[in-house]
Amino acid sequence: MNRKYVGEKLERARREGRLMLTEAESKAVLAAYGIPVVEEAVAASEDDAVARAKGMGFPVVLKGHGARLAHKTERGLVKLNLRSVTEVRRAYRRIKTAAGGDWEGCLVQPQVEGRREFVAGMFRDPQFGPTVMFGLGGVFAEALADAAFCIAPLSDVQADDLLDDIRGAKLLGDFRGEKAADRTELRRVLKGLSQLSLDRPEIAEVDINPLIVAPDGRVKAVDALVVLSENGVSAADGPGEGVPEAEALAIRRDLDAAFNAKSVAVVGAAPPREKGFMGMYACVRDFGYAGRLYPVNPNLDEIDGVKAYPDLVSLPEPVDLVVVSVPAPHVPDVLRDCVAAGCKTVHIFTAGFRETGEPEGIRLQEEMEKIAREGGLRVIGPNCMGVFAPRTQLVTWPAALKGAGSLAFVSQSGGNAQEFTKYAASRYGIHFSKAVSYGNALTLDGADFLDYLSRDDETEIVGMYIEGVKDGRRFLKMVGETNRRKPVIIFKGGLSETGARAVSSHTGALAGGAKIWRAFFRQTGAVPVDSIEEMADVALAFHCLKEIRGNRTCVLGYGGGSVVSVADNCAKAGLTLPAFSPALFGEVRKLVPPVGAMIRNPIDAAVAFQDVDVMGNILRLLAASDEIDNIIVFVPIDWLMNEGDGGGRHIEKVARFLAGQGRKLAGGKPVVGVWRQFVPDPENRKWVPVLEEILLSAGIPVYKGVPRAVNALAKAAAYYAFQERRGS
Amino acid sequence: MNRKYVGEKLERARREGRLMLTEAESKAVLAAYGIPVVEEAVAASEDDAVARAKGMGFPVVLKGHGARLAHKTERGLVKLNLRSVTEVRRAYRRIKTAAGGDWEGCLVQPQVEGRREFVAGMFRDPQFGPTVMFGLGGVFAEALADAAFCIAPLSDVQADDLLDDIRGAKLLGDFRGEKAADRTELRRVLKGLSQLSLDRPEIAEVDINPLIVAPDGRVKAVDALVVLSENGVSAADGPGEGVPEAEALAIRRDLDAAFNAKSVAVVGAAPPREKGFMGMYACVRDFGYAGRLYPVNPNLDEIDGVKAYPDLVSLPEPVDLVVVSVPAPHVPDVLRDCVAAGCKTVHIFTAGFRETGEPEGIRLQEEMEKIAREGGLRVIGPNCMGVFAPRTQLVTWPAALKGAGSLAFVSQSGGNAQEFTKYAASRYGIHFSKAVSYGNALTLDGADFLDYLSRDDETEIVGMYIEGVKDGRRFLKMVGETNRRKPVIIFKGGLSETGARAVSSHTGALAGGAKIWRAFFRQTGAVPVDSIEEMADVALAFHCLKEIRGNRTCVLGYGGGSVVSVADNCAKAGLTLPAFSPALFGEVRKLVPPVGAMIRNPIDAAVAFQDVDVMGNILRLLAASDEIDNIIVFVPIDWLMNEGDGGGRHIEKVARFLAGQGRKLAGGKPVVGVWRQFVPDPENRKWVPVLEEILLSAGIPVYKGVPRAVNALAKAAAYYAFQERRGS
Repeated sequence: MNRKYVGEKLERARREGRLMLTEAESKAVLAAYGIPVVEEAVAASEDDAVARAKGMGFPVVLKGHGARLAHKTERGLVKLNLRSVTEVRRAYRRIKTAAGGDWEGCLVQPQVEGRREFVAGMFRDPQFGPTVMFGLGGVFAEALADAAFCIAPLSDVQADDLLDDIRGAKLLGDFRGEKAADRTELRRVLKGLSQLSLDRPEIAEVDINPLIVAPDGRVKAVDALVVLSENGVSAADGPGEGVPEAEALAIRRDLDAAFNAKSVAVVGAAPPREKGFMGMYACVRDFGYAGRLYPVNPNLDEIDGVKAYPDLVSLPEPVDLVVVSVPAPHVPDVLRDCVAAGCKTVHIFTAGFRETGEPEGIRLQEEMEKIAREGGLRVIGPNCMGVFAPRTQLVTWPAALKGAGSLAFVSQSGGNAQEFTKYAASRYGIHFSKAVSYGNALTLDGADFLDYLSRDDETEIVGMYIEGVKDGRRFLKMVGETNRRKPVIIFKGGLSETGARAVSSHTGALAGGAKIWRAFFRQTGAVPVDSIEEMADVALAFHCLKEIRGNRTCVLGYGGGSVVSVADNCAKAGLTLPAFSPALFGEVRKLVPPVGAMIRNPIDAAVAFQDVDVMGNILRLLAASDEIDNIIVFVPIDWLMNEGDGGGRHIEKVARFLAGQGRKLAGGKPVVGVWRQFVPDPENRKWVPVLEEILLSAGIPVYKGVPRAVNALAKAAAYYAFQERRGS
Repeated sequence: MNRKYVGEKLERARREGRLMLTEAESKAVLAAYGIPVVEEAVAASEDDAVARAKGMGFPVVLKGHGARLAHKTERGLVKLNLRSVTEVRRAYRRIKTAAGGDWEGCLVQPQVEGRREFVAGMFRDPQFGPTVMFGLGGVFAEALADAAFCIAPLSDVQADDLLDDIRGAKLLGDFRGEKAADRTELRRVLKGLSQLSLDRPEIAEVDINPLIVAPDGRVKAVDALVVLSENGVSAADGPGEGVPEAEALAIRRDLDAAFNAKSVAVVGAAPPREKGFMGMYACVRDFGYAGRLYPVNPNLDEIDGVKAYPDLVSLPEPVDLVVVSVPAPHVPDVLRDCVAAGCKTVHIFTAGFRETGEPEGIRLQEEMEKIAREGGLRVIGPNCMGVFAPRTQLVTWPAALKGAGSLAFVSQSGGNAQEFTKYAASRYGIHFSKAVSYGNALTLDGADFLDYLSRDDETEIVGMYIEGVKDGRRFLKMVGETNRRKPVIIFKGGLSETGARAVSSHTGALAGGAKIWRAFFRQTGAVPVDSIEEMADVALAFHCLKEIRGNRTCVLGYGGGSVVSVADNCAKAGLTLPAFSPALFGEVRKLVPPVGAMIRNPIDAAVAFQDVDVMGNILRLLAASDEIDNIIVFVPIDWLMNEGDGGGRHIEKVARFLAGQGRKLAGGKPVVGVWRQFVPDPENRKWVPVLEEILLSAGIPVYKGVPRAVNALAKAAAYYAFQERRGS
C-alpha cells in the first residue's frame, strides 16, 4: 500500500464505526511506513488456507480475521506452529468455529522463528504528544517493564539511543549464536512509527507485539494494532502549534524591555512591612532600582515621600514592567488597567488562583487568561516572585545579591528562584544575567523565557526549575536548540508519583511521568539535576571548564579510606578511573615511594601534598598522558595543617600552586579541586574558604567532598559528549 | 534416593574421574534434598523409550544420557515437544547417532509446560563460601543478568527475600492467567541447595536451568548439573571454622584490657615532631592518658623528662597495650619482644607490608603473622591508627575529641577512623564508646572487634568501615548477631570494580563483588552507607529515635519548590508520603487556609511556621492519625528571619517549641528536623547552630537539607522493619 492511501483506510474504518483496525489493516499501514511486517495472506476457504500455507512453507500460523475480532489469543483464534496440511485444516476449522458470527476469513502467516521478542509502539503523551516506545517483549515484558520512550520525531541517533536505553539492550547484539539485530531495520521501525504519528494525528496508538528478531538478525513485526482516537484529531496529536515567529519576536522584545525596564509600577504598593515579607514595593526600591519607580495604591498619597498613583491609567507613562501585589479578586481589574494604560509586561505576585484547586481560584485565573490574551499582555505569574536583572538593578524579591554574571535561571517556583540565585552567588561566586520565577504561567511559560535567553548575549549557561510545561513539544524543541548554544541544566520537580501530586497542588501544572522525562533529557541533552545545590555544582563546572574531552579521570589524594571510596564515587557518577598503564605507573612510581601510598589511580600519596614539586611532576605526567582526560585533586585540609610552615599556611601554598603553576602543568586538562575537613577546630576550618577563594578565582571548580565533584564533572562531561555525538 | 547415599554417588563419580555428574545423577542428588525435579526415566532401547513416553503421556522430551555427554543442546542431543510415537522413535535414533561412542541410553521426560523460566544454583564465593543463586531464566537471562544471591544457610525469611530481590519478581505472582508460583516449593529449592552446599563441601557448583513454574504454580527443576570441586574439599567450602569459644573469650578479655589499658608502651617513641604527624608517643601523652605510659627507644634516655626504656623486656611490667611505631624491617623484632615481655595486645602503626604489593612487604607481613600466631599476640594493624577509648583517655591518633558516648566505630582505614570520630562528635554531638582502626588485620579482623563490641555495655550503635574481610562467614554471623542487639551501620569501601582495585592496594584485602555484598546486607539487616557523612546521619537517627514503626511520613514545610522536591526525595529514599485521607485533609484544612499553601502531604504552610500554635495543632492531628508514622519538619531559616519578633528570634521560638511542646504533641512519633539556609548573611547563618543545638539537645535529629534527612530516616526505619520481620 502506498503511504498516501493510509488516510483513506483510516477514514473508512472510522466511517464503519471501528476505532481498531484489523491486524491485516494495521500491518498494511505499518508496511506503508517502511516497517518490516511478516508476510501474510487472508484465506477465504480451507483449501485456500492450505494453498497459502504450502506457498509460504511450513510451519505456519493461522489467525482469525475480522473487524470485530479482538483478544484473539484469549478467544482461541490463534494457532501457532502448524506443521502439516492436516494441522492447517484442523486449525482453520477450529478458528472458524471459535470466531462464530465475527468470522470474515483466516490470516495465514509463516511461523517467524526468533527467540528475541520486543515490543514497539506509539502513543500520545498528554504533555509531549506523539511518543515512540520500544521495549522487551515476550512473556517477561510485563513483569520487567523494560521499556523506553522517545518523543517524535526521531533522528537516527535518537533511534539508536532509544534502542540502547532498555536494560535488555544486550539482546540486540550478537546473542547465543544468533546474529546482532539489524539496526537499519530497527531504526526503520522506530522512525516509521514516528513519521506515522506525525502524518496521521487521528491515530491514537500503535502497538507492535511481538517484534521478533530472527536468528539472522532480520526484524519482523508479527502482530500489530492501530487504534484511532475517539474524537478524531486530539489535543496532543501532532507537532505543537508552537508560537508564530512574529509573536515570538514580540515576546522577546517585551521581555527584553522588562528585564531592562526604564520604568516600573508596583500596584498594591505599601510602606515596607516590618514583619514577614517586606512587600513588593520595598523589594524593588531597596535593591536600588535606578529607573522610574511608581507606587500605585488608591488609598495612599505617598509612600516614604514618593507620590503614589491611584491606578495605572493615571501614570505619566506606560511602564516597561507592572508588578501586581493586590488581593486575588482585584487582579483582573488591574490587568484591565494594564491594557488600558498600554503596559505590556506584568508580573503578578499575588497567589490564590488555579494552584489552590478551589473553584473560585480557577475561575479567577480563567478570567485573567482571557483579559491577557485579548489585551496582548505578557504575564509573568501569577503566584510567583517575578524578575531579577542585576545589570538593571531590578529585582522583585527580598535580599537579592548585587553582582551580575552569565548564568540565567528560570524557575516555576519563587522559593527556588530566590534561594538558587543567592546560593550560587554566595557559595561559588557565580552571578546572574537574569532570573525569573513564573509560577502558574498564565501566558509566559518556560519555553518563552528560554527562547529569550537562548539569544541573550549576557547569558552563557541556563538553569531551570520546572514542574510542568504547557506545550511540551515547543519546550522540547526550545531546550534542544538552546542546549546547542549554551548548557541548559534542568531541575524537574515532581518526577515521582507523590512529587507529581505536590506539583499539581503547587502550580496547577501537569507533571509527566519519570520515563517520558528520561526521554526528554536523552533527546535534548539538557543536564538533569535533583536539587538547587546540585544545579549550582554543575553550573560551576560549566562556568570554569570550557570543554571536557572525556570521562577518564585521575584522582590525586591523600588518606587511604577516603581515597578508596573515591573509586566507588566515580563508578556511581559514571566517570571512569582507568588503571594506569605499566609505563605511566612506572613514571609515577619514580615520584612516589611505595610505603603508605598507592598509585594505581586513585593516587594516594602524602608526598604529593607535602611537596608541591612532586604534585607538579605528577600533573605534568598526567597532562602528557593519553590515558587521562580530567584530574581531580583531593585536598585533606586537616592533614595539611601541620605540614610545611605549619598553622595551615601549607594549605594556602598548595592552593596557590594549583591555581598557578599546577594548572599550567596540567596542560589544559580540566582540574577539579575537592576538600574534606572534619576536625572541629576553627583554626582548621578557616582554611576552607581560603582554599576555595584561591581556586575559584583561578577558574578551578572546587567542591566539598568527592561525590559532589565527580557528579558535577560527570554531568558536564556528558553534555560535551552529547554535543560531539550530535555533531553540533 | 535417600540423602545419606548422596556422598557415595559423589565419591563414585570422582573415582571415575568425573567432576560433572550426569543430568540423571544431578537430579537424583537434588531430589534427595527435597528439590522438585521433573519425572524421568532412562530408556535402554527404542521400544523402552516409547513405552516410557506413553506412560508419562505426550508430549515428551528425549535427551541423550551418559557420563561423557555435556553441552547436550549444542550437540543435538535434546529433542523437545515430541507428540507421537513416531516422533519419539525418530528422536531416539537421531540422538543415538549424534551421541556416537558417548551413548549410554536415553532420558525420557514429560514436556514441562510453563512460560516462566528461572535459574537457581549454588557456588562457593571466595569470601563468603557457599552461596545460593536465584535468577530469571530463559532466553533473556543472560542479557538481563537478573540474579540475586544469598549466603548459605538460608532461613525461610531469607529464601523469600532472595526470591523477591530479582527485578522480575513479579513473575512469581499471579501472571497472565497463570497461578502464582508455589512459594513452598521455591523455598524447598533454595533451602535444599543451601543444605546440600553445607552437607557436601566437595560440591563446587550446582546449576538448575531451567527451573520452570507451570501454569498451576508448581515448580520443577527440568535440567540440572552438579559439579565437584577439583581439589576435593576447598577452602571456601563449608561453614567457616570460626574461632573456638575459648579463643573468642580470650580475645575479648585481651581487647577489654587494651581498651581499658592501665599501662601503655610506645615502641619507637620520640619527642613530638613539629611538622606533619606529631608521632605516636605525643598522641597518647597529649590526649591526657592517665595510666602508666612508657616510651621505648634504645637511642634515648628520656623524652621530655620521662625515662625511656631500651626495649619492652626492660619495662617494669608487661603492659596492656604496646604501640609500635618503628620502621617496617624492625617490627618483627619488636613482636618477638612483646612475646618475651608477656605483652598480649599490640597496635602496629607502621606501614609498608602487604598493602604495598611489593615482595619485601609481603614477606615481612608473613614473618610477623608467624610470630604473632606462635606467641598468641593480639595484633591491631599493621598500617593503621589504632585505638580510641575516651573513657580511658586513651587514643593513638592526633587531635581526638574529648567526650564519651555510646557509638562504636571499627575501621579498616586510619583516615576514616580519625575523621569519622571527629565528624560525628562535632557535627551532631554523638560521642564514642570505643573506636579502632585495624588496617591489614594481621590477627584481629573486623569480626573480632564486633564480637567484643556486641557485648560491650558502653556501646549501643556500631559503625564499621571495611574494605575486605578475612573470614566472610564468621563476619556474616557476627554482624547478624550483633545487629539483633544494636544497629550495625557498615560503609563498605571498594564495591565498584575500580573501588575494589583501590582496596587491594590499600590494605591487601579481598573485596567482594557488589552483588554478594547486597546479599550480605539483606541477610544481616546491617545498614549500608556510602560515606562517613552518611554514617553519621544514620547514627544520629538511631541515637535519637528509639523506634520507628513504619515509613509513612508527613513533611511539614514552607516554600513551594523546595517542598515539591521533598516528595521526590522521599520516593528516592524509599519513604512513602501518603496522601491524606479526606477526613485528615479536612482537619488540616481547618488549620491552614488555601491561598499559597498546599496540604496534601507534603504540607506547605507558612502559617504553621509563623504561628507555633498552628504547628502544634497540626502535630496533634498527625499524632492522632493512623495514616502517618513519622513527621519531618522542614525549617526555612531565611524565610523566618523576619517573622515574629524579627532578627531571627522567631527561629529560636520555633526550635524551642519543637523541642518542648511540639515533640510532646507528636505523641511519641519520630520527629525529624531539617533546615535550609541560602542567604549569605551572617545574621541568618548564625541561627542554624542555634536551631541544631536546641533540637539535638532535645533528642530530635536535625539535618541540612531534606535528602540527608529522609535517607537517614528511611535507613533507620528499614532496620526496625527488618528486626520485626525477623521476629527478634
